[in-house]
Amino acid sequence: MYAPGDVRVEDRQDPTILEPTDAIIRLTATCICGSDLWPYRGVEPVDHTAMGHEYVGIVEEIGDAVQTVKVGDFVVGSFVLSDNTCEICRAGFQSRCEHAEFASGMQAEKARIPLADGTLVATPGQPDADLIPSLLAASDVLGTGWFAAVAAETGPGKTVAVVGDGAVGLMAILAAKQLGAERIIAMSRHPERQKLARFYGATDIVEERGDEGVARIKELTGGLGAHSVVEAVGTQESFMQAVGATRGGGHLGYVGVNYDVQIPGIQLFFAGIHTLGGPAPVRRFLPNLIQLIWDRAIDPGKVFDLTLPIEEAAEGYRAMDERRATKVLLTF
Amino acid sequence: MYAPGDVRVEDRQDPTILEPTDAIIRLTATCICGSDLWPYRGVEPVDHTAMGHEYVGIVEEIGDAVQTVKVGDFVVGSFVLSDNTCEICRAGFQSRCEHAEFASGMQAEKARIPLADGTLVATPGQPDADLIPSLLAASDVLGTGWFAAVAAETGPGKTVAVVGDGAVGLMAILAAKQLGAERIIAMSRHPERQKLARFYGATDIVEERGDEGVARIKELTGGLGAHSVVEAVGTQESFMQAVGATRGGGHLGYVGVNYDVQIPGIQLFFAGIHTLGGPAPVRRFLPNLIQLIWDRAIDPGKVFDLTLPIEEAAEGYRAMDERRATKVLLTF
Repeated sequence: MYAPGDVRVEDRQDPTILEPTDAIIRLTATCICGSDLWPYRGVEPVDHTAMGHEYVGIVEEIGDAVQTVKVGDFVVGSFVLSDNTCEICRAGFQSRCEHAEFASGMQAEKARIPLADGTLVATPGQPDADLIPSLLAASDVLGTGWFAAVAAETGPGKTVAVVGDGAVGLMAILAAKQLGAERIIAMSRHPERQKLARFYGATDIVEERGDEGVARIKELTGGLGAHSVVEAVGTQESFMQAVGATRGGGHLGYVGVNYDVQIPGIQLFFAGIHTLGGPAPVRRFLPNLIQLIWDRAIDPGKVFDLTLPIEEAAEGYRAMDERRATKVLLTF
Repeated sequence: MYAPGDVRVEDRQDPTILEPTDAIIRLTATCICGSDLWPYRGVEPVDHTAMGHEYVGIVEEIGDAVQTVKVGDFVVGSFVLSDNTCEICRAGFQSRCEHAEFASGMQAEKARIPLADGTLVATPGQPDADLIPSLLAASDVLGTGWFAAVAAETGPGKTVAVVGDGAVGLMAILAAKQLGAERIIAMSRHPERQKLARFYGATDIVEERGDEGVARIKELTGGLGAHSVVEAVGTQESFMQAVGATRGGGHLGYVGVNYDVQIPGIQLFFAGIHTLGGPAPVRRFLPNLIQLIWDRAIDPGKVFDLTLPIEEAAEGYRAMDERRATKVLLTF
C-alpha cells in the first residue's frame, strides 16, 4: 500500500532465513482483513507498506533451530508471532508474548515467519482445496472471533449478544454455537449478513443500534441484559452498546477498537461487568480450530464472499471498502 | 450535609416500617466513607442530604415478611440493599440486584433497612465491643477491598499490586493476604499507611506513581507486570497506572472511579487484560467476612484511626478531608 487507497502488486525480493528460528513459507492463499481498511481509509498511517497478516501455506525452508514444522508441511500461523514458551504464552496470551511481533507482508507469494515453532501449526496432512479458505480464516478472523466468544465466557446456558456482523462478528457467532451457547443474538441490519449469522448459529436478530439496541437486548433477556457480549465493531457507539447490553456481573469480550474510543470510567464502573479484550491469542486456539476444520465440523471459510487472484488485490480492497464484500480471499 | 463542607447533626423523625420486608435497626456505630468526601468537596451534588451508608446495629423491629433476622439480633448490612434472590444476586452480583438501592442516612442512631432479608446478616451472637469497628468495616470498606482483590483474581502464586493506600486499598491488601497471594506490592507514599500496609500483609512498597510506578512494578515482576492489580484510588492517573501495571492476560479489579475518568480504548485493548469493577457486592462476602472477624482471624477495624461521638461528625469530615485521618468511626 503506497498510500491510503493506493494498493499495487509488484515483484519483491524473495524472503530468506535470517534467524535460526525462522521458516520460509510459500503461501497457498492470503486475504484482506477488515483492519487493513484502516490505513486504506487514511485512519492509520501507511507509506509503501507490505500488507497482510493472514496466511496458510507450505514450508519451503526452516532455520536450524526449528523443530515442530518441517519442509513440505502445510501450516497455519497466527497474525501475532509468538515464542509460545514464555510465561505469558503459557498462560494462553500469546498475543502479549514477551517476543510478540505482528505478522506483516503476508499478501505475497512467499513470507518469512519468525519464531516458527511458536507461531505455526502444521495440519494433519495436505488439505483438500475446499478446506483452504477455512484454514486461512483460522489465522485471524476465526481465531479472533473465537477469542471474543471465549473472552465473553460464552458457554452452555448462556445468552450471547454479538455486536457487529462483519467477518469477526460472524466467527464469534460460530464460536458461541460451538461453545454451547443457548441463545445467540446477532446485532445486524444487513440482510445477507443476517442470513450468514443464522447459518452460523444466531437464534435472534436485533436491528436496532445504540440505546435502542440495548433496550431490545434487555427486552429479550428479562430486563437483565446478555450474560456474554461480543464487541466486534470497535467504534465508540458500538463499544458502549456492548457495555449496556451486558448484564451486571456478565462478560464483555472485545477484539478491536478505533483510536478515538474513550470509555467513560463511571459508565463502565456502574455496569459492574467483566471485560477482556486485546489482539486475539490465536495461537492458543489454532490446534483445536484446525482439527474442527479438518473434521468439517465448522465451515468458517464461508465468510469469504469474493475470491480474486492476487494481481487484483486493489479491486479486493475497493470491494471491502465499499462493503460489496465482507472478506476477500486472494489466490496465486 | 446541607451543602459542600457544611455537615450538621440534628434531630430527625424516627424511621418506621414502610414495607413488610423492612427492618428498623438501632445503630451501634457508623462511619464516614472516602466517597462521602465527594459531595463534601463539591465534586458531587449535595443538598440537605442524610449521609452515611455503613452500619452495624441491633434489630429493633421487623416487617411481617422478614424471616432471616429477628428483633435483638446484631446485624451487619451491605451499603447496597439487595433482595439476594434474583438471578443477578444468585450469580453473586448483589450490587446490581434487580431491586438494588444504595443505603443512605446511616450516619444516624436509627435506620430503616429495606429488603432486610437480602441485605442484613446476623452475627453469631452479641459481639464484644472490640469487634465493633471490624464488623462495621465489613459493611463497605472491607467488603469493597475484598471484592477488589477477588475481582483481580488474587490467589496463591500470584503477585498483587495495590494502587492506593486509603482504607479500601489497605483492605484489599488484607484480602490478598487471606486469599493466599504470594507477593503483595503496596503503592503508597505515606509512611503511616505504609506501616499499616505491611501490617495487613504487603511484602513490598512502591512509592513511584504514573509511568514510573508502572516501570517499578515491571522491574519487580521480571518485566511482565503483576498478575493481579487492585485500583483503589479512582483518578485518571491511578486507573491508567493500574492498567499499565497489569501483565498481559492479567486481572485488574477496580472499585471506584471519578466522574471525569476517560479510559482510552486503544490503551486498554493493547494491554490485553481482564477487568472487573463496580460497586462491590458486599453481601456475597458478608457471611465469610463476619466469621473471619468473629474468629479474630482478621483485624480490619484498625483502618479506623479516629473515633468521635456522632455529635462531632463535622470534625470527622474535616479530619478526613485534610487527610489527618484515614477513616473516622462515629459512636453514639
